[in-house]
Amino acid sequence: MLPRLAPAAQKDAAIVPPTPSHELADCWRLARTEGVGPIAWRRLLSRFGSAAAALDALPRLARAGGRPAPPAIPTADDAHREIERLARLGAQLLVLDEPGYPPLLAMLDDAPPVIAVQGDVDALAAPAIAIVGGRNASANGQRMAENLAAELARSLIVVSGLARGIDAAAHAGALATGRTVAVVAGGIDVPYPPEHAAMQRRIAETGAVVAEAPLGTTAQARHFPRRNRIIAGLSLGVVVVEAALRSGSLITARLAQDAGREVFAVPGSPLDPRSRGTNDLLRQGAILTETAADVLDNLPQNPARQATLDGPVAPQAGLAQPWAEPPEPFPDLSLVRSHVIDLLGPAPTPIDDLVRRCQFSAAAVMVVLLELELAGRIETLPGNRVALLTDEAHWTE
Amino acid sequence: MLPRLAPAAQKDAAIVPPTPSHELADCWRLARTEGVGPIAWRRLLSRFGSAAAALDALPRLARAGGRPAPPAIPTADDAHREIERLARLGAQLLVLDEPGYPPLLAMLDDAPPVIAVQGDVDALAAPAIAIVGGRNASANGQRMAENLAAELARSLIVVSGLARGIDAAAHAGALATGRTVAVVAGGIDVPYPPEHAAMQRRIAETGAVVAEAPLGTTAQARHFPRRNRIIAGLSLGVVVVEAALRSGSLITARLAQDAGREVFAVPGSPLDPRSRGTNDLLRQGAILTETAADVLDNLPQNPARQATLDGPVAPQAGLAQPWAEPPEPFPDLSLVRSHVIDLLGPAPTPIDDLVRRCQFSAAAVMVVLLELELAGRIETLPGNRVALLTDEAHWTE
Repeated sequence: MLPRLAPAAQKDAAIVPPTPSHELADCWRLARTEGVGPIAWRRLLSRFGSAAAALDALPRLARAGGRPAPPAIPTADDAHREIERLARLGAQLLVLDEPGYPPLLAMLDDAPPVIAVQGDVDALAAPAIAIVGGRNASANGQRMAENLAAELARSLIVVSGLARGIDAAAHAGALATGRTVAVVAGGIDVPYPPEHAAMQRRIAETGAVVAEAPLGTTAQARHFPRRNRIIAGLSLGVVVVEAALRSGSLITARLAQDAGREVFAVPGSPLDPRSRGTNDLLRQGAILTETAADVLDNLPQNPARQATLDGPVAPQAGLAQPWAEPPEPFPDLSLVRSHVIDLLGPAPTPIDDLVRRCQFSAAAVMVVLLELELAGRIETLPGNRVALLTDEAHWTE
Repeated sequence: MLPRLAPAAQKDAAIVPPTPSHELADCWRLARTEGVGPIAWRRLLSRFGSAAAALDALPRLARAGGRPAPPAIPTADDAHREIERLARLGAQLLVLDEPGYPPLLAMLDDAPPVIAVQGDVDALAAPAIAIVGGRNASANGQRMAENLAAELARSLIVVSGLARGIDAAAHAGALATGRTVAVVAGGIDVPYPPEHAAMQRRIAETGAVVAEAPLGTTAQARHFPRRNRIIAGLSLGVVVVEAALRSGSLITARLAQDAGREVFAVPGSPLDPRSRGTNDLLRQGAILTETAADVLDNLPQNPARQATLDGPVAPQAGLAQPWAEPPEPFPDLSLVRSHVIDLLGPAPTPIDDLVRRCQFSAAAVMVVLLELELAGRIETLPGNRVALLTDEAHWTE
């Protein structure tokens, strides 16, 4: 593993050796372990230096956090079986902060630790624009998405979510003139919706299909926001073509904005509820988009390139320090644990705040938070925040 | 006449005597004199103190400016005939900077010196919002205009231009719930388009119809921008519902913005050319409008009331000074005149610039500019600018 603060994409991929297969398998096992979310994954790697060492420490950490039974960790055989099945589907795994992993995606606090990529992995490294929108799209909205995608695919990769409506129109438009990337909510082997199986194959022929979920996963409602963060994370900006209020496309737009990407919105008649969301985005400052030129003229500098110029990317700045020092001597962690639990509630609390309000060192608080997360008692959220899970009442200290 | 710098609307109308009829007639005659535009009208009143004195001075000024024949000045009989005919139509004349003249309209540099108002003059003093848009409006656009107008007319006067399409829908919507003002491009007695004659009558029953053009004038293309400035001038803001690129509604929006009024635009599909203009306004910072609340929440402070708080309105600030002093002793004006002509071209030049580049006093330059305008050799434009008229080559000094 490379150290977290120097993402692989900023190095010359040619001189970095590929991840050894046993390390790849361990990264996958750690990512698939119960209770290890994307943020905990990155912290475990950072603390223990390798996925293997993190896996060794997991049962102890979870027990310390108050988890009665050890977490279920997939075996090395499970990992190799998954990797072989992926290969048969023309897909491979990419590991966060390793060579080949998309640099823009790596900038998310909660970047997926492991993604399966079917097709051309290089399609994920080129500058990309997301085009998204509602499933029950109007004919005009679909035409708009298709035309925009066809124009933009001449110079950019077009990213979308393979859904019905706007997404499908965007992929179709991009396929006509360039390359496109589909991010799917389920496993790469479970096309959803089923009628888009052929389109998924066509996309993978020249572009790529990306999945965070394991093979065999059927897309469910709860997967979509996670899929949407990958769409936003891969892209320099997100164009929302049609979106009702409180729709998934607006979540993608918000995630894009949170990640410092540009948000573009196509205006529509106030009489069509399918334009309420896009009009609302415009009201909030999204760039009004009628043609591809509106997008190209307003595309931000590549944030990864910008980060290189400004110095290394530090997605969790302020927290690197405690981990850089050996976390010893530590106070009695059970004291730290009960104090931290007292300070937390179901509303997200910034970790910096928590540390300030504690009489313990940041390093000790971080260890306790990791343990509590592995025990399933707290949730770590992007933006360096933690929240107590609501069933905490059922736990005993 | 009241002095120009204290518009009548800022005083208590009850204690200000109405304009005597002979003075009203003279104001009308001056406004109808060949070569006297709105800006020159205001300057003449300011310089000579009354319309009668200005009328006396006109032939001399025009001759000094290089006009071979004296300008055609309507007679007092012409004025009284017009006023009587207006009375029979239920209309009256309002004079700029006199009681009853709409205060917001008076704030324009090129406010019309005299307007004919059919119906209730008080409708022009209440807070107003303009709703405008294209003639070949879509069914959705018309519905939008009608709904917005019906909502807004509950608390505001709705101003529009009595044209086909959006204008007619706005008036219809407003008539259902409140009052509306129609500004027409021709004479008040020549309804245009003809099929809106009945609507004009209905509007005048509770609201008002406003015309700058003399009775008997048939609306022509060149009248519309002048009509549009009155629509903008009467209103706190302008809502553009549908507008193609380079359409008259965009002129209204620009005039509104120049006058410090708010611009609202209804978004529409980029695939409909009737929304190109409104989407472009949004791109330039117009307030995105889907409902009446979008307008009501963003309506600016009444600029006239604001001006009262900040001190008197000075629409031509910087020029008041030269006129406040007796314009004597003057240099040889023919020298000033030829120098000013040399400095001018067909592109508008700020008067301040002109004065700076002259070795003559501002007062002398102002006299010469007024003479040249009355002679039809230059045009005075809003924003304190003048331009040489393109047929100047045909004149001899």
